Parts: sequence; structure tokens; C-alpha cells
Amino acid sequence: MKVNINNLTFKTIIGILPFERKKRQQIIVDISFKYIYNKNSTYFIDYSKVIELVKKNIKKEKYYLIEDALLGVSQLLKTNFNIKKLKIKITKPDIIKDCKVSVSL
Amino acid sequence: MKVNINNLTFKTIIGILPFERKKRQQIIVDISFKYIYNKNSTYFIDYSKVIELVKKNIKKEKYYLIEDALLGVSQLLKTNFNIKKLKIKITKPDIIKDCKVSVSL
Amino acid sequence: MKVNINNLTFKTIIGILPFERKKRQQIIVDISFKYIYNKNSTYFIDYSKVIELVKKNIKKEKYYLIEDALLGVSQLLKTNFNIKKLKIKITKPDIIKDCKVSVSL
Amino acid sequence: MKVNINNLTFKTIIGILPFERKKRQQIIVDISFKYIYNKNSTYFIDYSKVIELVKKNIKKEKYYLIEDALLGVSQLLKTNFNIKKLKIKITKPDIIKDCKVSVSL
Repeated sequence: MKVNINNLTFKTIIGILPFERKKRQQIIVDISFKYIYNKNSTYFIDYSKVIELVKKNIKKEKYYLIEDALLGVSQLLKTNFNIKKLKIKITKPDIIKDCKVSVSL
Repeated sequence: MKVNINNLTFKTIIGILPFERKKRQQIIVDISFKYIYNKNSTYFIDYSKVIELVKKNIKKEKYYLIEDALLGVSQLLKTNFNIKKLKIKITKPDIIKDCKVSVSL
Repeated sequence: MKVNINNLTFKTIIGILPFERKKRQQIIVDISFKYIYNKNSTYFIDYSKVIELVKKNIKKEKYYLIEDALLGVSQLLKTNFNIKKLKIKITKPDIIKDCKVSVSL
Repeated sequence: MKVNINNLTFKTIIGILPFERKKRQQIIVDISFKYIYNKNSTYFIDYSKVIELVKKNIKKEKYYLIEDALLGVSQLLKTNFNIKKLKIKITKPDIIKDCKVSVSL
């Protein structure tokens, strides 16, 4: 079973440039992962908890590099949930004019 | 030959939260599968029948978990059609603010 | 080198239903293929010729099944160009309410 | 770590047709590549420098074929950055009516 959380959009302090440390910017987070679920499963992953954890972590850590945000969120989710094939992408839609930049893991 | 049914959108009772059991919500279903078709084939899969079956099943079963809806629909299609590499995704576009959540099989 | 032709949109007679034989409907064709090109190449594939051939064939043949249109176009392109890994998708965006149906090869 | 630069949109002289040599047309460049980054990394790739290099190269070279633009940009990025699995796509959104044509490497 694969869970996809797309276009999770919120504002946070993130980035290395001086203005990025002062003013929150919008980021877009995409997450997918697999976990085992079948007819006899009594356990399922509550996507609302995944979303809550990710937002809280990124807002609290105020990462400098997207690269470090990806490593931090990845570690967090793997510690809290029994998941496999985790993919995370963080997009800064407004940081560069005329394009959309993202880093993924 | 691969058949893709995208953005199949309709309202149904689905979910575990109290308000989800009372009020129908919009879901989006994406389905793809492969089947053998060549110049000499006399059989083809009628996509309108696939769509009808899927909608009827999900509306009737009023699944609690998207995970169980996926297992149910998968079983149904494999029983009724000679298909391979079936992929199904069910999206709840409105369940969580600021993102789009889906589960796929 | 990979060539992608996306959202090629035009009207044609296509389909098995009585009204589909009488009235042209819009279809969307997506094509991609690979061919060998490097610094010393003197040959390149003119995408405008690919597009012209595909449109002309589909309009002329008035296929009944999308499946047969895919087989016909595939044969045509492989005969006329030295290409590999050809992928073709034909979408009928309006044939079924509330979803988008396509078949790909 | 994978860096994605999407929808990098700008005007340039590109193409083989007479009017394409005279009037700048809009192109869309998509780039992705992988590089090694972990907790102890002291080096990261500055995406703004990648973008600057690519735009400057394409505008200066005024390529005739998208195919040659892809080869040129690929060579440039591989020389300047320690990256792997580089993918580049260049789209001419307006060159053919009713579709979107791109070439990728």
C-alpha cells in the first residue's frame, strides 16, 4: 500500500540567504511511502499524523538547506512509522524567478 | 495495451471519522491496467463497464479505510476482467487542508 | 535523444458507438520515442513531419477502437522513421462524464 | 540528493526555420540531477548558479537544433558540477499549433 501526500503547502523560515532568515516563505512538500496492509491488518497509518509531524518539524527547525530539511524529515518519519520506500520532495516555488526549484530524496 | 482511467470523480460515503460516515465526500479514482490486444484480437475491454463497476462497488460498500476500498476494487476488477499490472489510486482531495492525500495499490 | 509530442489535439471520427461514427470528437495524442543523435550526426527527426503523418493517418482511417488506432500509428511511425522505444497514448477526453479515458501502447 | 529545476522559462534565438533565426521564441527548460549530500557534507550545489549557467549558454549559442542545445548544456553542467544522472528537457511550447514539442536527454 502506498500513501501519497501531495502539495502540502505552508510558510516557514528556510534558506541560507539573509532575507530568507527573516521572512517566512511558502514551501510545498510532497511525500510518499509504502507500508504493508492487507485484509487481516489491524494497523494503518494515519496520514493526518504524518502531515502534522512534518509541518511541526520543518517549522521548528528552520532549516538552512532544503537538503538538511529532507534528511531531518526522513529520519523523523522512519523513526515514528514502519514505512518503506520513503520519498520526499521540498519545493521553493518563489525563490527563483521564472522557474520552480525543488530538492528530493 | 494499457488502459488508463483518470480523474474519475464522484461522491460517496468513505472514511473513519464521524462526519465522514454521515456526509458524502468527493473522491478521485485513477485506474490503469494492461491487457493483451493485437491485430487478430476479437476481444477488447469496454472501459465504460470498468468505470460502472468501480463506482457501484465503492458507493455500495461505503468503505471505512481507503486501503480497504483499494483491496475491494482490485479484487472486483481481477475477477471480472482478464487484466494485468492493475494500479488503482484513490484521492480524498478535501479531507486535509493545504494538501491532497491519496492511497494507491 | 528522446522526442516528446504532447497534447496533440484534433477532431476525428473514432469509436464504436453510433454517434461516434457520425460526429467528430476531440482526441488528444501523446507520442514519445528515442533516436540516436550525437555531435557528429547529420540526421535529425523533424517533429513536424511526425505530427503531420499521425494526424493524417488517424483522420483518414476513422478507427473504431483506440486500440487499433494505436497499432496503426505505431506501424506507420516505425516504417517511416528509425526510432526506438515508441510510446503512444490516445485520450478521449469527453467520451465518459466525470473522467478521462485513454489507451496507450 | 536530487535537484529539480522545472519550468525555467525564457526567450532565446533557437531553431532552424528562417523566422526562428530572427525572432526570439519562448522555451521551457527542465533539469534534474543527483549529487551526493549527507549529514557531514560541507558542499552543496547552488541551484541559482546552475540556472544562470544554463540560461547564459543557450542565449549565447543560439542553437539551431534542440538536440544540440541539449548536448551543449549537458557538457557544460558536467564540466562545472560533480553531478550524476543528469536529465534535461527543452520544450518549444509555441512552435507547432495544437501540441507541445520537447526533446530530452
